Amino acid sequence: MAPETNLSSRERLLEAAATLTYQDGVGIGIEALCKAAGVSKRSMYQLFESKDELLAASLEQRSSAFVAGLLPAAGDGRSPRERILHVFQQVELQAGAPEFQGCRYLAVQIELKDQSHPASQVAHRVKGNLTAFFRTEAIQGGASDPDLLARQLSLVFDGASARAGIGADNLTGLITPTVGTLLDAAGMS
Amino acid sequence: MAPETNLSSRERLLEAAATLTYQDGVGIGIEALCKAAGVSKRSMYQLFESKDELLAASLEQRSSAFVAGLLPAAGDGRSPRERILHVFQQVELQAGAPEFQGCRYLAVQIELKDQSHPASQVAHRVKGNLTAFFRTEAIQGGASDPDLLARQLSLVFDGASARAGIGADNLTGLITPTVGTLLDAAGMS
Repeated sequence: MAPETNLSSRERLLEAAATLTYQDGVGIGIEALCKAAGVSKRSMYQLFESKDELLAASLEQRSSAFVAGLLPAAGDGRSPRERILHVFQQVELQAGAPEFQGCRYLAVQIELKDQSHPASQVAHRVKGNLTAFFRTEAIQGGASDPDLLARQLSLVFDGASARAGIGADNLTGLITPTVGTLLDAAGMS
Repeated sequence: MAPETNLSSRERLLEAAATLTYQDGVGIGIEALCKAAGVSKRSMYQLFESKDELLAASLEQRSSAFVAGLLPAAGDGRSPRERILHVFQQVELQAGAPEFQGCRYLAVQIELKDQSHPASQVAHRVKGNLTAFFRTEAIQGGASDPDLLARQLSLVFDGASARAGIGADNLTGLITPTVGTLLDAAGMS
């Protein structure tokens, strides 16, 4: 990754952390991160207290792109059912890219195995917002049990992206019928 | 972990690799594994070509316990629907244990991010056998699309164990209705 000189050291470190942990996992070394960012270790420690903090900040910074890449625009006039299905169509689309490794916010929590890690906490919150989106749409769409439906959709989201990320399933013809069945059972027309 | 002297060095290494990678991830060092097993590094390299091979062998060895902990006994007289639900009741039960970190065969693939790694290949095969079990039961139970149902159940299995493993969901009141809905939609009575 060639450092882009129009970005600040901080931005380059955030970008390197996001890219390299996604490709190689949270075990990636500080040397590799600094090298990819074109930033000295000394500068890194002036900008971030620790690698843990850098990782948490990189996940935080990516969260708006994560949301924009999945969620429909607010008030786009579509039904709650269509708005929920939009999220899963995006997952299927993203999973088709050769570099897809599943949802980074799930992977980082599985890899860190520590719910109190600052990066796990950011990831937990970002995914909680996705569940909250499902719940809001479930209520709007008159689901019989919005909490249950939101948990089911979160489960399908994580299962689908994890399985696509490890190459266990390509998701084709899988997500739309699965989500459709769950929406039907919840009475969401 | 105190080495149990009635086990061979090989068995102690397999046990340490399974336990420590589950707790701490695949990044666990060879020194830590050898220390926990009470085996010298030299002995380890006489028994296993590499840490990768040790990890793969530990996953292979655990696979019979994985299957026994999830699958119903062959020919137990229950219906295919009940036999499928049994697997998910076991997941819910296992997820209640404080040390539960999700399915080790999913986690290791997410962590390694390398489908050609010997441990990923073992994990891929073990999970493939679970999908094959679902498919066999789906056919036995007259599911309208056994392949689809097997993929859906695998997706629910991975989503549920992953979310429970990271503390995003406790699975209570979630899996049975979700699986039940999918079985109903597939026409499995």
